[in-house]
Amino acid sequence: MSDHLGKLLVLTSFGESHGRFVGVVVEGCPAGLALDVSDVQKDVDRRRPAAGAGSTARAEEDRVEMISGLFNGRTTGAPICMLAWNRDVDSSHYEKMRFTPRPGHADYTAFAKYGGFNDYRGGGRFSGRITAGFVMAGAVARKLLATAGIEVMAHTTEIGGIKAPASTADQIRQNVDRNPLKCADTVAAELMGKEIQEARQKGDSLGGIVEGLALNVPPGLGEPVFDTLEGELAKALFAIPAVKGVEFGAGFEAARRHGSENNDPFTIVGGEVAMTSNNAGGILGGISNGMTIVVRVAIKPTPSISTAQHTIDLREMKETNLSVKGRHDACIVPRAVPVVESMIAFTLADAALQRALLPRVIR
Amino acid sequence: MSDHLGKLLVLTSFGESHGRFVGVVVEGCPAGLALDVSDVQKDVDRRRPAAGAGSTARAEEDRVEMISGLFNGRTTGAPICMLAWNRDVDSSHYEKMRFTPRPGHADYTAFAKYGGFNDYRGGGRFSGRITAGFVMAGAVARKLLATAGIEVMAHTTEIGGIKAPASTADQIRQNVDRNPLKCADTVAAELMGKEIQEARQKGDSLGGIVEGLALNVPPGLGEPVFDTLEGELAKALFAIPAVKGVEFGAGFEAARRHGSENNDPFTIVGGEVAMTSNNAGGILGGISNGMTIVVRVAIKPTPSISTAQHTIDLREMKETNLSVKGRHDACIVPRAVPVVESMIAFTLADAALQRALLPRVIR
Amino acid sequence: MSDHLGKLLVLTSFGESHGRFVGVVVEGCPAGLALDVSDVQKDVDRRRPAAGAGSTARAEEDRVEMISGLFNGRTTGAPICMLAWNRDVDSSHYEKMRFTPRPGHADYTAFAKYGGFNDYRGGGRFSGRITAGFVMAGAVARKLLATAGIEVMAHTTEIGGIKAPASTADQIRQNVDRNPLKCADTVAAELMGKEIQEARQKGDSLGGIVEGLALNVPPGLGEPVFDTLEGELAKALFAIPAVKGVEFGAGFEAARRHGSENNDPFTIVGGEVAMTSNNAGGILGGISNGMTIVVRVAIKPTPSISTAQHTIDLREMKETNLSVKGRHDACIVPRAVPVVESMIAFTLADAALQRALLPRVIR
Amino acid sequence: MSDHLGKLLVLTSFGESHGRFVGVVVEGCPAGLALDVSDVQKDVDRRRPAAGAGSTARAEEDRVEMISGLFNGRTTGAPICMLAWNRDVDSSHYEKMRFTPRPGHADYTAFAKYGGFNDYRGGGRFSGRITAGFVMAGAVARKLLATAGIEVMAHTTEIGGIKAPASTADQIRQNVDRNPLKCADTVAAELMGKEIQEARQKGDSLGGIVEGLALNVPPGLGEPVFDTLEGELAKALFAIPAVKGVEFGAGFEAARRHGSENNDPFTIVGGEVAMTSNNAGGILGGISNGMTIVVRVAIKPTPSISTAQHTIDLREMKETNLSVKGRHDACIVPRAVPVVESMIAFTLADAALQRALLPRVIR
Repeated sequence: MSDHLGKLLVLTSFGESHGRFVGVVVEGCPAGLALDVSDVQKDVDRRRPAAGAGSTARAEEDRVEMISGLFNGRTTGAPICMLAWNRDVDSSHYEKMRFTPRPGHADYTAFAKYGGFNDYRGGGRFSGRITAGFVMAGAVARKLLATAGIEVMAHTTEIGGIKAPASTADQIRQNVDRNPLKCADTVAAELMGKEIQEARQKGDSLGGIVEGLALNVPPGLGEPVFDTLEGELAKALFAIPAVKGVEFGAGFEAARRHGSENNDPFTIVGGEVAMTSNNAGGILGGISNGMTIVVRVAIKPTPSISTAQHTIDLREMKETNLSVKGRHDACIVPRAVPVVESMIAFTLADAALQRALLPRVIR
Repeated sequence: MSDHLGKLLVLTSFGESHGRFVGVVVEGCPAGLALDVSDVQKDVDRRRPAAGAGSTARAEEDRVEMISGLFNGRTTGAPICMLAWNRDVDSSHYEKMRFTPRPGHADYTAFAKYGGFNDYRGGGRFSGRITAGFVMAGAVARKLLATAGIEVMAHTTEIGGIKAPASTADQIRQNVDRNPLKCADTVAAELMGKEIQEARQKGDSLGGIVEGLALNVPPGLGEPVFDTLEGELAKALFAIPAVKGVEFGAGFEAARRHGSENNDPFTIVGGEVAMTSNNAGGILGGISNGMTIVVRVAIKPTPSISTAQHTIDLREMKETNLSVKGRHDACIVPRAVPVVESMIAFTLADAALQRALLPRVIR
Repeated sequence: MSDHLGKLLVLTSFGESHGRFVGVVVEGCPAGLALDVSDVQKDVDRRRPAAGAGSTARAEEDRVEMISGLFNGRTTGAPICMLAWNRDVDSSHYEKMRFTPRPGHADYTAFAKYGGFNDYRGGGRFSGRITAGFVMAGAVARKLLATAGIEVMAHTTEIGGIKAPASTADQIRQNVDRNPLKCADTVAAELMGKEIQEARQKGDSLGGIVEGLALNVPPGLGEPVFDTLEGELAKALFAIPAVKGVEFGAGFEAARRHGSENNDPFTIVGGEVAMTSNNAGGILGGISNGMTIVVRVAIKPTPSISTAQHTIDLREMKETNLSVKGRHDACIVPRAVPVVESMIAFTLADAALQRALLPRVIR
Repeated sequence: MSDHLGKLLVLTSFGESHGRFVGVVVEGCPAGLALDVSDVQKDVDRRRPAAGAGSTARAEEDRVEMISGLFNGRTTGAPICMLAWNRDVDSSHYEKMRFTPRPGHADYTAFAKYGGFNDYRGGGRFSGRITAGFVMAGAVARKLLATAGIEVMAHTTEIGGIKAPASTADQIRQNVDRNPLKCADTVAAELMGKEIQEARQKGDSLGGIVEGLALNVPPGLGEPVFDTLEGELAKALFAIPAVKGVEFGAGFEAARRHGSENNDPFTIVGGEVAMTSNNAGGILGGISNGMTIVVRVAIKPTPSISTAQHTIDLREMKETNLSVKGRHDACIVPRAVPVVESMIAFTLADAALQRALLPRVIR
């Protein structure tokens, strides 16, 4: 396993779904950043399952503890270790299906890679639960970016085929936490909710799309030719369980266009270079171009469904059936929204440090 | 700039479009691999512009030289430096548009990031030309993977809205180099060629999609939670200029599905674990699952078009028009095919070394 | 701050002297390694202050908790987070000298680098206390190396000018924990103890030398030209507070020799390549040569002394005097012994993984 | 092999002693730095063998070529590839001793590690010749540091037991290139020369010590707890063939001192924090403290000697004798001086970039 991410700002993830803690260490955060556990708790709370959004009934309280790197309410330059206890854990369902991997899940690959020694309970290290640690790190990154005026947001744009209409940043900012779908459009949110409800009743699940935005990113972030902003964001986003695609700006749609449609013409706005469209999603040549960064993430439907599925018994090497019991989200897309935000924030903060856009000490 | 990629197998890229050389250093290749310059030359030749595929007229000979790391026809364990001379270079067009960035290109972001000191001729470091170095590294990786029976291939699946029907690995293997579009379906290839021809005549350009496959990858490659196979492949692929989206298996389509459709049921084939479908694209939990790895890459239309576009003059900070002259591909998708192959091969070879699937000395 | 070390086996350190915890995350440990908290506790206990060795009176119990990465008594492949509570902490002395840096300590450089936001209590992040985390990681590495038959040991060879005579590995193994000096020679140990006692009575402190050995290391570890075994070991050892020099084999003495004296002649022992002397300290060209690895580490005298010293007041920028109060070791050399062992073990385990000498799953 | 060094400023080394080229790629150099091939050539020339310093007769012209990363006399932000042709190469001696490893050399470890596929001619990748590439990279780093007023120098302080008296920075600056020993003291230089001459006549060789200094380094460079300035410098310096020890400030001598002697008292000089002694060698807690950085490097005697030595035949696994023929330096210490300077400069420039002390664009 490789559990750290970043170059100057480095996140190290630890913990398992049914272990004692899930947590994170953040290295390289400049000293002097005002930071309170409530800043982190607030973001972690947004990741909690919400009634009506097809989420698990697990009552995750996720009380965050910051156990190093803070002194007198400010970061010290030292690594920040944050963790949350795992509570309310019922591992009994997992024991039964230890050798019958759930289709679509990491059960089999984890078994194969770690020789059966992996902690399979609740998906272990491959559970969405570990993203609670990502969100803790993201909260630090967001506060850091805020000192440079950069804002990161995300919202659900599609679930089960229901697409939300385009939203402005203001609409997202105002609406995203007003409905359990984390969708900026309330009408679409309602339709999405119904789709999820229906899927759940059939013992099925749904996927969807989350869009992330970063506003006020100055030109110059990203270190091509390999540490491009797109590449680093994609790598960070693919660490979120269930992500199967990442695209920027016009993304796959660009592949169907002519250059004359897809190129973003330059213009001058208020004495600054700007573009009259943003098909590039704010990134050209792997470097931020000053426009809003726009990234979309495809999230597959939750693999854990109660409908019977074909699988195998790994001990006897024969086929069998499986109906996944236990608490499972029928759609994890809304819960992925703050995680997507966190990974974007973290990646941009690291890029900003590499570019020396953020100071080494914040006063 | 950050110009190296990989952990145990490390590629360092250097060179510019109109500089003296474009090249690469490959570190960490096991000793004992039989390798000849012809192995590399063959792959680099596949990247050359082909008549009828909308490519530039630049007569790039790209004679590869291997200047270190080889001895008596085998790798020595030492870094392998490979390079190709840049010839037939006409920089005159670029001088005129030095301060008028081409929409959709890295001209502006490079100017902003490097304070105007960047080598702007031919796009400099942001030219597709640097991918000749990627292909050299990929050729080494492919030979390395071949020792473990792993095969990587890629093909054009869509250009300008023309989609090729699904192809088998055999069809791709046989057909991909038979038409200038690098498309496994000859009928689709012909239609794509016409679309490109039409776009070119209008002074426009087209984007498209390249699909990459890796066959016979054993389960267990990929190092979650951050160095997932998807994340590492995506990062490598986003280093290819013009890539704006990456998806695995069902990809964005998965976001529209139910879990019952998208999960790949397990089965036993010949005593081995297999799946009856491959919506996961061969990767679960960031780890290879033994099925064919399938990744699709969205390539935006070439930004350099002769049609007049709005841009700005960076010295005078005022708007102006630009019609890009010089030799430019109306569609670079076919030329991206061997580059996509190379990045996949390189990433898998590095993952295989991390997993100790490949020996440190090949005998 | 950069708080992680290693390439495939990665240690991330966190915690401060007077914070809540000191701990470590170890990534990349192969799955299947039998590991119990007692394995780690045993090594951490060896780091505790011992009566008669000039050590602090701080009653550090250092009860280790392993909060992730273990399941059913074996490693899972997931990151192993280990920590120990800080107890019995008296920070009152530090408040007074917050702006009067102790000569020889990191007080001033930490103040300068982190803009005064650093946690200065007890030296904060620069305290020897953080090495408790290093030892936890080292305990994992030692168990890992043991599966390949590799053994690491260290012992005090010099304190305050008293040099212990040469010892065999057996003598070290048997005697090192029998006296508080961690010296393999009991006579020398007694003399060292007296020197320390004398220094302590004068309100002064003493430095010394620790020698580390690694036995049964096969040829081939180390990744030149930059990740040489010497370079990686040195980097790891210089992370131990107070280390000011590192030498291998004959070390600085080699600089005074002729080649004919210093070269180690090759021979055959039991059908295996060996050398008739070991001036190279087991490393040639940055690669292990099959002989015992021998490294010596110079540890400066503890900077915290009660004797009055010249320093400055950083607020008023004027000179002043300082007599360091509180509990301080008059000689930290014996306590450094298990830390030196740990850093050697960790570095070798990482090198062994890179070389694929250790399997990815231990069965 | 791992052939790159550094985090933001990254050096990738390639080439072998008897291959076609030896070279280097430098990534991450800020754009805008005025740089001419003569800046690099000048430093590389200082590495050349000098008559009277016990050096090889190989007429290495080492004409440096800069093949990327420069445009109009300034760095562009792109990777800088520099190389020098290998000429005047006679490999005949090596063929004969391919299977009879030279004692003290990397011949055997390279053979063992790379399965006999290594390029053994002239020591291949383990030859001192690859340091020509290090010096090229160092030349870039020195120009970079000069923009921040930082100066790096090195000089021979001991050869064959002859110790030069302490020298001021001015004396070093003026004298180091005036004698072939690169010693700041002309009397000592003469004695050293005689020792070398004598050793050579006996078919033997000598080691020595090089001291490196860095002046005007501001406080704050170095990223503890693992990327300490001492650790990074040591790692870089141990990449120089034949280095067996590295110490800072009082170094190993500190191990014999009391704290009251070894601590450097603080004072105020010209309104700035300073110390009245420099036993710390300019580094406290792994961070520069504003004083001159002082590091000493132990260089073992050249292993290649014409005196007969015991070795083995690796094919027949039996003992034999070896008298090394060919051109070999009786003492490589003086030639190591510019290499030590280069590694120090490179490491400090990387640290300065990490600390954001150097701008990303130099105007």
